[in-house]
Amino acid sequence: MKKSSVHFLPAGVCAPSGFFSSGVACGIKKNGNHDLALVYSETPCTSAGTFTTSAAKAAPVIYDLKLIRKPVSGVILNSGNANAATGKPGMKNTMEMSRLAQKTLAQKKKAKVQPILVCSTGRIGIQLPMPRIKKGIQSAVNSLSRKDDVTPKAIMTSDTFPKSIAARIHVDGKTFFIGGMAKGAGMIQPGMSATGSRPALHATMLCVLTTDLKIPTPLLQKSLNTAVGQSFNRITIDGDMSTNDTVLLLANGKSGVTSGNERSPVFKLFQQTLNEITRALALMIVKDGEGISRVVSLCVKGARSAADAEAAIRAIGNSALVKCAWFGGDPNWGRLLAAIGYSGAKVNPDKFHVYYDDIPLVQNGLQINKNVKKARKVAGKSSFMVTCDLSMGKHKTMLYTTDLTEKYVEFNKGE
Amino acid sequence: MKKSSVHFLPAGVCAPSGFFSSGVACGIKKNGNHDLALVYSETPCTSAGTFTTSAAKAAPVIYDLKLIRKPVSGVILNSGNANAATGKPGMKNTMEMSRLAQKTLAQKKKAKVQPILVCSTGRIGIQLPMPRIKKGIQSAVNSLSRKDDVTPKAIMTSDTFPKSIAARIHVDGKTFFIGGMAKGAGMIQPGMSATGSRPALHATMLCVLTTDLKIPTPLLQKSLNTAVGQSFNRITIDGDMSTNDTVLLLANGKSGVTSGNERSPVFKLFQQTLNEITRALALMIVKDGEGISRVVSLCVKGARSAADAEAAIRAIGNSALVKCAWFGGDPNWGRLLAAIGYSGAKVNPDKFHVYYDDIPLVQNGLQINKNVKKARKVAGKSSFMVTCDLSMGKHKTMLYTTDLTEKYVEFNKGE
Repeated sequence: MKKSSVHFLPAGVCAPSGFFSSGVACGIKKNGNHDLALVYSETPCTSAGTFTTSAAKAAPVIYDLKLIRKPVSGVILNSGNANAATGKPGMKNTMEMSRLAQKTLAQKKKAKVQPILVCSTGRIGIQLPMPRIKKGIQSAVNSLSRKDDVTPKAIMTSDTFPKSIAARIHVDGKTFFIGGMAKGAGMIQPGMSATGSRPALHATMLCVLTTDLKIPTPLLQKSLNTAVGQSFNRITIDGDMSTNDTVLLLANGKSGVTSGNERSPVFKLFQQTLNEITRALALMIVKDGEGISRVVSLCVKGARSAADAEAAIRAIGNSALVKCAWFGGDPNWGRLLAAIGYSGAKVNPDKFHVYYDDIPLVQNGLQINKNVKKARKVAGKSSFMVTCDLSMGKHKTMLYTTDLTEKYVEFNKGE
Repeated sequence: MKKSSVHFLPAGVCAPSGFFSSGVACGIKKNGNHDLALVYSETPCTSAGTFTTSAAKAAPVIYDLKLIRKPVSGVILNSGNANAATGKPGMKNTMEMSRLAQKTLAQKKKAKVQPILVCSTGRIGIQLPMPRIKKGIQSAVNSLSRKDDVTPKAIMTSDTFPKSIAARIHVDGKTFFIGGMAKGAGMIQPGMSATGSRPALHATMLCVLTTDLKIPTPLLQKSLNTAVGQSFNRITIDGDMSTNDTVLLLANGKSGVTSGNERSPVFKLFQQTLNEITRALALMIVKDGEGISRVVSLCVKGARSAADAEAAIRAIGNSALVKCAWFGGDPNWGRLLAAIGYSGAKVNPDKFHVYYDDIPLVQNGLQINKNVKKARKVAGKSSFMVTCDLSMGKHKTMLYTTDLTEKYVEFNKGE
């Protein structure tokens, strides 16, 4: 392998060649904020996606599931309305959004345009205001540019900041790009799979990833599964999985660089960078969780099986009592143990170890009293790591989670 | 079956003949409140129990599991310290509590005393202050009486009121009693079984039930399983199952009435009354949940299977977003559907119906707009019923749950 390098950039979905985007306000949100985003590639893309495993999938998810892995030209996304639990009219509206975007693009670009994927996020159970969206699509097509600073704002709901990142990859004297944008904030415990069916785990979180690498569909999907499995599917804010979670990856080949097979240096670097980009976006979502005050990197190790590690870490990461303790800066390990106790994972309280960052707080089930003050200092930080070692086996897993705050409750207590 | 009647009484564990109790303050709690309770029967009891299915069982649970269904003379209970995650010293202390109670009772009563069961509730991970408990046991034995008004106060932790109830049962010209006391407040999603092992579901909640009916151990255990299955195992406050959940049922036969077999009118009336007493105590626990402002009787019907009904109802009853909406008096049904969606239960959003009390809010997946105001009025009450009809089959289940409030978070944010 020749000299290679990866540079991360403060950019987004338009970092790769040939991608255009826009974000407009069309009146779906009552406050006049941006609420419609368009990502478009001037050449057809291979596509891959992962989708919520919820049994109550929103119309755009059901629609995208049929379209994904076929050639597409872009994605139309709205915020302010999830188009979930909207029955047949909801599905008709999703199809209309897609068709309008495709048709308007074709007219504007005077070119053949492939189908357009659709994402929605916002309140569940309300029909989309289609006359506004129709006007919005016209406006979004007219304002397409190589800029991507406004685009991620148009997919925000309770997010407090737009989320995007990109990377420039040099390998073997060639250059290609990956770009991405995402939104999160509440109803965050993504559990996505390529087919929207289980097995997989548990926001609405949306993410659009773009690349100008030329890469065949099966390998594109495989790379996305890997990346999502160690990023978006490893975060939880409130344990509530959304009806709309979607990650889309579009590859237009415009760089002229081809991925090669799984063992090629180009593909390996693509995968590695995609992993880092998705993890960065996932962490931005956790950091921007509704009302949260602390980000906790949770690790469960020494589990008897992968299933035990997963059960234990989800129980801890979603325990109301554990999360309230963290809010108070209290390293309350009894609540950690109680959560593992009911998770279904095998645990022996006498062989249980807990660390706050690198401070051992519990050894063989007994508190190390001299370290309590130090652990309390760690739990008072805005970001820290908690490790639970079950000493029952070799299995290990990670999860990014948050505290549970009065602000979260206040935020979610009504419309 | 001859004339029979059941009268509920504002009484507790001493309503049945031959039971004595006491509650004392021995300094486990720093605020000087009552923290040690004793229930004693002057004649040996048959015993039955259900215990947390947590894999991290507290020492008293492990101890009681060995003793249960053998003859016992009573129960010693402390609050302020769970004696959970306390290793070998913790188990030694539990055994010492039991032995001290038995020995002190034998000395005081100048009689042979059977073993004494043990329950603990409070903070996890701290050793019991045994010198205080030793003095407390002496004091508890000395103050035993046929009164039971202070006893339930001595098992309270974050509870705001003591919980007890009793019933007098007349059947076939004979009379016997059932009495009970309980505590709850936080870490409440009991999931108990007779053996402390799964299958079963998810506070510390403690409950002691007494009766002067003469009833054989297997039937006593069976009746308790039935009663717990439709009461304590059907409540959730925060979704956190405790390391200490315990329900004990002691029968001393002092009434001279015998249960007969499962088909006898006496047993049937015993079971029916036990069901009502446990349900009443379970509802007191829900009503006194930490910081809660609303009690919600949740019903899922039309599920494809019992497992689907259970998965759906636990997902709704423990969803942070659903519970925050209720706090705000918002009948947000989209969050109900999202919770069912990720529960693993089969659901068709187009065949989904929601009722707030008797107000239909959603029919075939679509909101009935004219009823939104009425549903909002229901969701603003301190107690209401929510029914989700999946229209997929004939299975139905119930769960008593609560809202999630800022007060809950405030209460649990530190020590």
